[in-house]
Amino acid sequence: MNRRPCRLPALTILAASLLAGAAHAATPGNDPAALAKIRDTVMQSNYAYERLADLTDLIGPRLSGSTGAAAAVQQVADELKKLGAKVTLQPVKVPHWVRGEEKGELVGYSGRPDGVSQRIVLTALGGSGATPAGGITAPVLVVHNFDELKAYKPADVKGKIVLFDVPFDQLMADRGLAGNAYGQAVAYRGAGPRMAAQMGAAAALVRAVGGAAYRIPHTGATQLPADVKLPAAAVSIEDSMLMDRLSKRGPITMHLTLTPQTLPDADSYNVIADWTGSEKPDEIVIVSGHLDSWDLGTGANDDGSGVTSAMQVIHTLKQLDFRPKRTIRVIAWMNEENGQRGANAYNESVKSTAEKHIAAYEDDGGSGRPFGVKASVPLANVKMFAPLQQALLPLGAGVFHREDVIGSGDLFGLERMGVPTFEPVIDSSDYFNYHHTPADTFDKVNPDNLRRHAAVMATTAWFIANADAPIGRAAVPAETGRH
Amino acid sequence: MNRRPCRLPALTILAASLLAGAAHAATPGNDPAALAKIRDTVMQSNYAYERLADLTDLIGPRLSGSTGAAAAVQQVADELKKLGAKVTLQPVKVPHWVRGEEKGELVGYSGRPDGVSQRIVLTALGGSGATPAGGITAPVLVVHNFDELKAYKPADVKGKIVLFDVPFDQLMADRGLAGNAYGQAVAYRGAGPRMAAQMGAAAALVRAVGGAAYRIPHTGATQLPADVKLPAAAVSIEDSMLMDRLSKRGPITMHLTLTPQTLPDADSYNVIADWTGSEKPDEIVIVSGHLDSWDLGTGANDDGSGVTSAMQVIHTLKQLDFRPKRTIRVIAWMNEENGQRGANAYNESVKSTAEKHIAAYEDDGGSGRPFGVKASVPLANVKMFAPLQQALLPLGAGVFHREDVIGSGDLFGLERMGVPTFEPVIDSSDYFNYHHTPADTFDKVNPDNLRRHAAVMATTAWFIANADAPIGRAAVPAETGRH
Repeated sequence: MNRRPCRLPALTILAASLLAGAAHAATPGNDPAALAKIRDTVMQSNYAYERLADLTDLIGPRLSGSTGAAAAVQQVADELKKLGAKVTLQPVKVPHWVRGEEKGELVGYSGRPDGVSQRIVLTALGGSGATPAGGITAPVLVVHNFDELKAYKPADVKGKIVLFDVPFDQLMADRGLAGNAYGQAVAYRGAGPRMAAQMGAAAALVRAVGGAAYRIPHTGATQLPADVKLPAAAVSIEDSMLMDRLSKRGPITMHLTLTPQTLPDADSYNVIADWTGSEKPDEIVIVSGHLDSWDLGTGANDDGSGVTSAMQVIHTLKQLDFRPKRTIRVIAWMNEENGQRGANAYNESVKSTAEKHIAAYEDDGGSGRPFGVKASVPLANVKMFAPLQQALLPLGAGVFHREDVIGSGDLFGLERMGVPTFEPVIDSSDYFNYHHTPADTFDKVNPDNLRRHAAVMATTAWFIANADAPIGRAAVPAETGRH
Repeated sequence: MNRRPCRLPALTILAASLLAGAAHAATPGNDPAALAKIRDTVMQSNYAYERLADLTDLIGPRLSGSTGAAAAVQQVADELKKLGAKVTLQPVKVPHWVRGEEKGELVGYSGRPDGVSQRIVLTALGGSGATPAGGITAPVLVVHNFDELKAYKPADVKGKIVLFDVPFDQLMADRGLAGNAYGQAVAYRGAGPRMAAQMGAAAALVRAVGGAAYRIPHTGATQLPADVKLPAAAVSIEDSMLMDRLSKRGPITMHLTLTPQTLPDADSYNVIADWTGSEKPDEIVIVSGHLDSWDLGTGANDDGSGVTSAMQVIHTLKQLDFRPKRTIRVIAWMNEENGQRGANAYNESVKSTAEKHIAAYEDDGGSGRPFGVKASVPLANVKMFAPLQQALLPLGAGVFHREDVIGSGDLFGLERMGVPTFEPVIDSSDYFNYHHTPADTFDKVNPDNLRRHAAVMATTAWFIANADAPIGRAAVPAETGRH
């Protein structure tokens, strides 16, 4: 159904407006003045920053299944309703993993004076199994890559605590490849404990994946099969280095206590809010971030800034009384961090109408300054984004970078259905200093940068939602590709 | 007694050597080649760095009264004996304060969703009293300076948890005034809890004194009268800011648990090691750092680097077979952090022979790059240090900065007895990022910088120990001065 409110009689306009929950003017389409107006309106607003304060100060951590996550669903849904968006809570069953006690102590090593032990700062990885309440005491085997572990006989690994002491490459992050640096190191967080379990280890530790060294461990999910309950933790960079140094002096023994629990799956929701299109309301442009966070920090960068940027899109269109041709759909995804059950539920619900999804944008790389947009649109269609680039240029965000496959986090499934995905190009050189740590807090978000995130997202969403020509479909990755 | 070994018969030389614990050649005095030799020998050595690894990796935290502190006394004394120094353990009764459980949680604030609370990362200040084991629940009063607290009526403070949300001025630290920035902020850690107690507060919190924000609180001593057992803690910068923001939304309530214990004073020691002078053995030049550390980190910067630099002085003179005219005395002070009982005991023991102390050098400002030396010698005598400046110039450490009063930490008492005190001039712009936190660990010490600290200290000590003219006495500060 196409609606063109301007051509309808007054009463019908009123009815349509009530339906959408807000009065609105004619859409100005993609003329440069409209794009500039959206951009500049966002840049003069504190809306996203205030919503981020609400989310992080009033609620804080939002791990799937937690009271915080439930409160966040409520807070964000209420706010989006207040803006006049059509809000739906999409049910999602989420994992419910709860951190317990966590303690590490080196109780034996060469040169240790009587009565002395060294405290090891660590934190359980999401999905970790538990030690007995009193902990375990076991020798530590320090390795520096997968091959080094594989070279051991299982008998040499059995019963030991395996530590993957693999550094994060901050120099790589500093030259603009933070994601790649993360990818290299996080492979050990993901697959290391599983491999250690296969070789009979009693527990697995990984060096914290991140760039700063303030003795804070970075949590995150590990990929253990459902029937493997290996205790698995991240160790602070300092303590991983300490254990590596001590292992060069002789055998070391650790007392390790980790008592997380995996509770039955919990009820939760994706928050979906439509700013209904005036001409093609069934065609959808998604703008999104994820609402869940890890439990240590308050998830300001990961991903409060993404969610509140998406909220700002609707806020700004309402403020300007702008109505797009296609529907702009805000999604606050649930459970990106440890299961992506929110994305899975959404994908399942739209799989028969995937072709109506014109584009999906997620902002989940932290709130560093954005320089432009990445997209998995067909190469031939890049040139049609020139007016968007022009509109973002005054923000220093004129980059338009195309790749075959982008869809990270929550958008991977949609991209596999052919939906072009978008994300901002960000200076993320210091993102992994805070990522998944207790220090991912409100104060780390620069309000000017957050405005830029919201401005890039809003302008891009508006541009796509009003594009006259089709932007094309994403290349469906081969089955053997990325998962 | 003056000894000139070169002029004595062979047998006497042997006896004298055995007495000092090592064979040694004639002193080359203060000729430039000797100063350069000492400097360059240190700069080619890993000795201090290896000793720092032993101290921090094998022992770790060394708070006064702890097993770690006792092990450190043993380790350092054994090593100095091995070098052939004349080692004395000077008994010192030290405070024995032990950290307990520490937990903070905001359980009430305007806008708080049901069931949600915010965790506050905090750590007890040295000397803090304890809450009941189950903690206390009380309203929080956020203030930003002493005057703001004083402006309240006692009835408004009574029973409340007072938070001093006073930021550390990192910009000041960045322009070379880290010590001043620390001084400004640490005034609240020192005196804030006492003032809060006087006004009837139930507990006192101070914003962590330091420059980096990784949600790690910085501990340190607070100055409570012996009969005041107020619970007092440092709150992470992030959480202090959070509480300040929430207090602007309405009243906030905190649940606070701090269960440190003050045990009976414990037996400990200053480690004193003499590298006996050949001509004026009773004239003393002290080189020193403090051996105790806070309990959270491993005290690599505060002050493992100072102690191991001082050890390197003797190691280098032994390696070169250099014997100074005056005695160079290494002191590893005990209890600098929470009582300065080591310094007090030493001062008491030398008060009748203070005039035999020619100079005292302490290195306790972290292991950032040193640029020269500060000294409280008489203004007229500065020019005699020109050869020392020349010798340190190739290290980029040619600054010689005179002040009336220097003696900080352990040297204040000696300076008040007229002993000129010395310390390195250091780039300490990032020192307070780690100071008194869990992150003050071995990896934070750059081995090249540590060599420079030891080289500046060794060259300066040699220069003073062999000076022909008296370097003069420090101006004794007025009684109304600094304490």
